[in-house]
Amino acid sequence: MKNILIIGAGLSASSLIHYLLSHSNKYNWKITVGDLSLETAQKKVNNHPNGIALRFNLKDLEQRATEISTADIVISMLPASMHPIVAHECLRYRKHLLTPSYVSNEMMELHEEAKEKGLVFLNELGVDPGIDHMSAMKVIDQIKKRGGKITRFQSFCGGLIASDCDNNPWNYKFSWNPRNVIVAGQGTAQFKEQGHYKYVPYNKLFTNLRKTHIPNYGDFEVYPNRDSLQYCDLYELQNIPSIIRGTMRRPGFSEAWNVFVQLGCTDDSYEMKNSHLLTHKSFLNSFLPESKKSIETNLADYLQIDPQSVVLEKIKWLDLFSNKIVGIRNASPAKILQKILEQKWALETNDRDLLVMQHLIDFEIDGVEKRITSSMAYEGTDREHTAMSYTVGTPLAIATKLVATNKIELRGVHIPTSPKLYEPILKELEKLHVKFVEEETNL
Amino acid sequence: MKNILIIGAGLSASSLIHYLLSHSNKYNWKITVGDLSLETAQKKVNNHPNGIALRFNLKDLEQRATEISTADIVISMLPASMHPIVAHECLRYRKHLLTPSYVSNEMMELHEEAKEKGLVFLNELGVDPGIDHMSAMKVIDQIKKRGGKITRFQSFCGGLIASDCDNNPWNYKFSWNPRNVIVAGQGTAQFKEQGHYKYVPYNKLFTNLRKTHIPNYGDFEVYPNRDSLQYCDLYELQNIPSIIRGTMRRPGFSEAWNVFVQLGCTDDSYEMKNSHLLTHKSFLNSFLPESKKSIETNLADYLQIDPQSVVLEKIKWLDLFSNKIVGIRNASPAKILQKILEQKWALETNDRDLLVMQHLIDFEIDGVEKRITSSMAYEGTDREHTAMSYTVGTPLAIATKLVATNKIELRGVHIPTSPKLYEPILKELEKLHVKFVEEETNL
Repeated sequence: MKNILIIGAGLSASSLIHYLLSHSNKYNWKITVGDLSLETAQKKVNNHPNGIALRFNLKDLEQRATEISTADIVISMLPASMHPIVAHECLRYRKHLLTPSYVSNEMMELHEEAKEKGLVFLNELGVDPGIDHMSAMKVIDQIKKRGGKITRFQSFCGGLIASDCDNNPWNYKFSWNPRNVIVAGQGTAQFKEQGHYKYVPYNKLFTNLRKTHIPNYGDFEVYPNRDSLQYCDLYELQNIPSIIRGTMRRPGFSEAWNVFVQLGCTDDSYEMKNSHLLTHKSFLNSFLPESKKSIETNLADYLQIDPQSVVLEKIKWLDLFSNKIVGIRNASPAKILQKILEQKWALETNDRDLLVMQHLIDFEIDGVEKRITSSMAYEGTDREHTAMSYTVGTPLAIATKLVATNKIELRGVHIPTSPKLYEPILKELEKLHVKFVEEETNL
Repeated sequence: MKNILIIGAGLSASSLIHYLLSHSNKYNWKITVGDLSLETAQKKVNNHPNGIALRFNLKDLEQRATEISTADIVISMLPASMHPIVAHECLRYRKHLLTPSYVSNEMMELHEEAKEKGLVFLNELGVDPGIDHMSAMKVIDQIKKRGGKITRFQSFCGGLIASDCDNNPWNYKFSWNPRNVIVAGQGTAQFKEQGHYKYVPYNKLFTNLRKTHIPNYGDFEVYPNRDSLQYCDLYELQNIPSIIRGTMRRPGFSEAWNVFVQLGCTDDSYEMKNSHLLTHKSFLNSFLPESKKSIETNLADYLQIDPQSVVLEKIKWLDLFSNKIVGIRNASPAKILQKILEQKWALETNDRDLLVMQHLIDFEIDGVEKRITSSMAYEGTDREHTAMSYTVGTPLAIATKLVATNKIELRGVHIPTSPKLYEPILKELEKLHVKFVEEETNL
């Protein structure tokens, strides 16, 4: 019998826990789910005979040692900054570790020690990062094997709302941590185009758009992610002339979102004075010149947008011209905007979210310029069973199964860019309806 | 005999050292000037019989203790982050301390201990901060004494170039640390207008302009400084409806500077790839969309500016469309831009810089709305004797004289907002031609 310990039972752990419990009889697993809230853990375990729910506090040194030392495999679903604590315990008690998060420098430094101890620490096993690595590397390796020379790599991903649940003018609802949506893109986007490094600051990000299409799912726009250049090394695409990663939104989203960016409403670096007294309207007014014009006209004039435009309609639809009280103390603009948006962009009970991902990889082969387009779209079931949580948790669960059944020979700290990982995981994901459709065309 | 120790003999210490040496016979002072470079210290002391030049390294614990313990008054002209080290030594050996820099939290925490030991630690004794506090408080206290109610406080300052030395289309040259000019305004400007708090992010800063005029010195434009709100407490202007501090430039500067801000050329937070290979033109191109248009057209189209405008002429005048090599490794955009600008905005040998400052203070008295405008303009002598260095060093020198002659009763950490400090200092500054002209008008 294998003991699998899952630390953290929040929204993104649901699909993971469900998968592992439903495979637990077949593989003879005991699944221990620990969370700061016993209730949350219990809800997820749902009295499954192979499941144990417990109140788990990472700061409780004794409990930490007991639970990790008696597990065979540990999965950390905690915030990324806490993974190193878990990782050090895993080294001490010689346990394998899996996480859905980006490999931090701290995690990377444990590579040699984990390797020496015969352990595998698998990271970036969610959707983005995770499925993006796997599905992109599958195409990249395939092109390289055919002798093709890759000239452009474009990779896009977005968490959106399924078309038939899409009933707002932004064509957007929150399917993951709203805070991350508010501050998305802050910093400088770095990518490469036709051999030239390109840098796009935050204030120009939402006007630097690309367009794309996914058959049966319609049109999307894409804004560049922060650092696309690191993927040259990660995907072994050194010296590629063009590389960009981006975030997908429905057409028109970015133009309206740019209003908040231009005004400074997404800033999380300072507290607004008397923030608890602000209304939606006075919040917006704080970023506008003092004026006797109506707020709509003042805003339109300040940002030089057409007062009759859909952009202004979208802002209005968010109730930003209303006198509703915001009501949070010592809040940054970002926190206030988040609160306003949470009231409008929340998933309704039966809403199904939509996870889309697409790679466009151009290459030359036998003197011909070709493109492989690899697209995936997956819709959630309802507010509790989102595509986001399914695509984050499922690859992690499959990887856990592979580790538990000794199918993974890799040792040390890894991400799923190797065929040894992506082949079995993508294969099983496809059976579970997370399927990439690849199409090859001449350019 | 009083021993005065000056630590740091850079550009901004010249006027300070000159003043103290030329008053040293009268007051029986010995002036010790320490700098990391003995040559710099010697050059400033210039063999004056009451001066001693020495190589001084703050990290040399023995030398630090020897020099500070044998001094009566210490002046730190080091970078602001080093003042606390000097301050702790001054506490240990019970010495008065003066600096031109903003009071850090670390410095503020020494207030009680300095007070108990009978010491005064005077800070913000340059021009901005320094002369701004003094000249503003003089008007504020005067209005309050008359029973006026202050309704608006506007305070502007700028380091520019004298009109007859102004031979470039930007109407600007560097008279102080170029780096500070490049990154000026990054963050969010916070001020108050008609009772409303206002927040202007960096990307909107250089289009949020006010206009002003100084008799005999012409027109200026002003962009808001980062944090004007802290001056409500500092100047005892709590509940004032309107308060703003700003930086003065010649009209048209900000519109052109905004090109760099919008493109992201002033970002100091990341290194550009292969920065040593960049030319002026490819540097600029890194922030522009890939295009077959000329760089001039591409830039104009991207920022939606008229290709025939003076803005584009200003960019061109900086050689930014040229193929000159920049030639710095691992450089941020800000560092590269600084290098390009240093070649064009350097003071020539006989250039005289111009320091301007203006307060516009509105108040109600006996049912009448009035304004006091207090303006100062001071021109330097040449590249070595700048208005910037004169107005930074002279108030500090005067304050040192006041401390040395026991004219200052204040103890603890202070800035010159009290009449006990600003009255004698402003009076002597006026004799030395740093003179504010006050004008009162009805609104």
